[in-house]
Amino acid sequence: MVAKNEIKRIRSLHQKKYRSRLGLFLAEGTKLVTELLNSPLEACGLYASEEGILEEAVLVTEAELRKMSALSQPSKVLGVFRIPLQASPVWQGWTLALDGVRDPGNLGTLIRLADWFGVRQVLCSPDTVDCFNPKVLQATMGSIGRVPVIYVPLEETLRHSGLPAFGASMEGESVGGVTLPQDGILVLGSESHGLSDTVREELAQTVAIPSYGQAESLNVATAGAILLYELRRGTPGLTQK
Amino acid sequence: MVAKNEIKRIRSLHQKKYRSRLGLFLAEGTKLVTELLNSPLEACGLYASEEGILEEAVLVTEAELRKMSALSQPSKVLGVFRIPLQASPVWQGWTLALDGVRDPGNLGTLIRLADWFGVRQVLCSPDTVDCFNPKVLQATMGSIGRVPVIYVPLEETLRHSGLPAFGASMEGESVGGVTLPQDGILVLGSESHGLSDTVREELAQTVAIPSYGQAESLNVATAGAILLYELRRGTPGLTQK
Repeated sequence: MVAKNEIKRIRSLHQKKYRSRLGLFLAEGTKLVTELLNSPLEACGLYASEEGILEEAVLVTEAELRKMSALSQPSKVLGVFRIPLQASPVWQGWTLALDGVRDPGNLGTLIRLADWFGVRQVLCSPDTVDCFNPKVLQATMGSIGRVPVIYVPLEETLRHSGLPAFGASMEGESVGGVTLPQDGILVLGSESHGLSDTVREELAQTVAIPSYGQAESLNVATAGAILLYELRRGTPGLTQK
Repeated sequence: MVAKNEIKRIRSLHQKKYRSRLGLFLAEGTKLVTELLNSPLEACGLYASEEGILEEAVLVTEAELRKMSALSQPSKVLGVFRIPLQASPVWQGWTLALDGVRDPGNLGTLIRLADWFGVRQVLCSPDTVDCFNPKVLQATMGSIGRVPVIYVPLEETLRHSGLPAFGASMEGESVGGVTLPQDGILVLGSESHGLSDTVREELAQTVAIPSYGQAESLNVATAGAILLYELRRGTPGLTQK
């Protein structure tokens, strides 16, 4: 049994405004919540609609969990976590930078990819979707607990990083022919407009994925997957796990 | 103005059962509908809520379009198209085969990738989500009009194809070290269970994407992106566009 006020407070975390105000976010699903409990993130409330799924959780009814949930198909476990203090960028290894990615599924998938490919951090322009949005978290599959996601004014940050930035763009050089350094920044643009003009000015080079068919473009998360794979392939100094 | 019955009939196309019964499917959005009009697919009804977007379309109110739409954010154009006769598989070049992919966004993204990388056809096991599902179509961005998608009993089809099948699997050989032929089949498993045991028996080899971080797995569409890129990179006989 949960107080109505508590449910209301948890529901408010569906919205970015209240997440910022309360400094909290909501994670759903046994897998995601368990992964976050094993990360440095601090849990402030755990709820489960079945006994034995998660020992530390408060037992609630399915109806209560449904009220708290931001998902169309609520799972059996829900956790409230503290939003961590934003890290400062570290200029070593590879960084993924996102210029206005709006779709929560795309951002979550890109954070998961960054984790898979051992990317140091994900930088987001201020108009990129909030990484603590429940749909983003869902798509990260727990990687949000391992990869620092940092919101910054992208142009200035690229300019002062001291690292070469490579932007994904249809008219760029085919990525397979580009010699990539050990340390750098891969920049991906928004779903509808690609890279913004001001960000383009800060790039060392634009790179493209060769096409062999007729599709006009690739989704930003799949383009990111290919480019991250290619930059790992191209920098053999890195340890494969 | 559209008759209530017509709206009801169009709404029924949100469900696979009625799509099969009527032999029709629904496409939404100016870009998608325009792409399909430029494909060999046959249009059976076009609706627009604004004049001048699509000349051939019947003008309807926004409320009417909202009633027809399967999307949470309806666009201004909607088309009804005839489901084409299923093609027969052709065993030349590369084929993408999907073993139980359930998420509409993933299937649509994979069809778009197949189009980008000039894949000959997409084979789907019977338990793969329907490719004429409105969310699949949305994610294909029009590629559904260019790439044949064929539902088949996957095991038998692989067995009789005469081509080597390469399955994506975490314990497979790192894909960068595998010599890939000019013609073959790339097989991807389902989001939750990977490749089924019966499909595994028909494979020539399993291949994996090397990991450099801590994420447990990759989303099936991003894994597909990397493997399709790699097989194009590895078969230089192909023409890049």
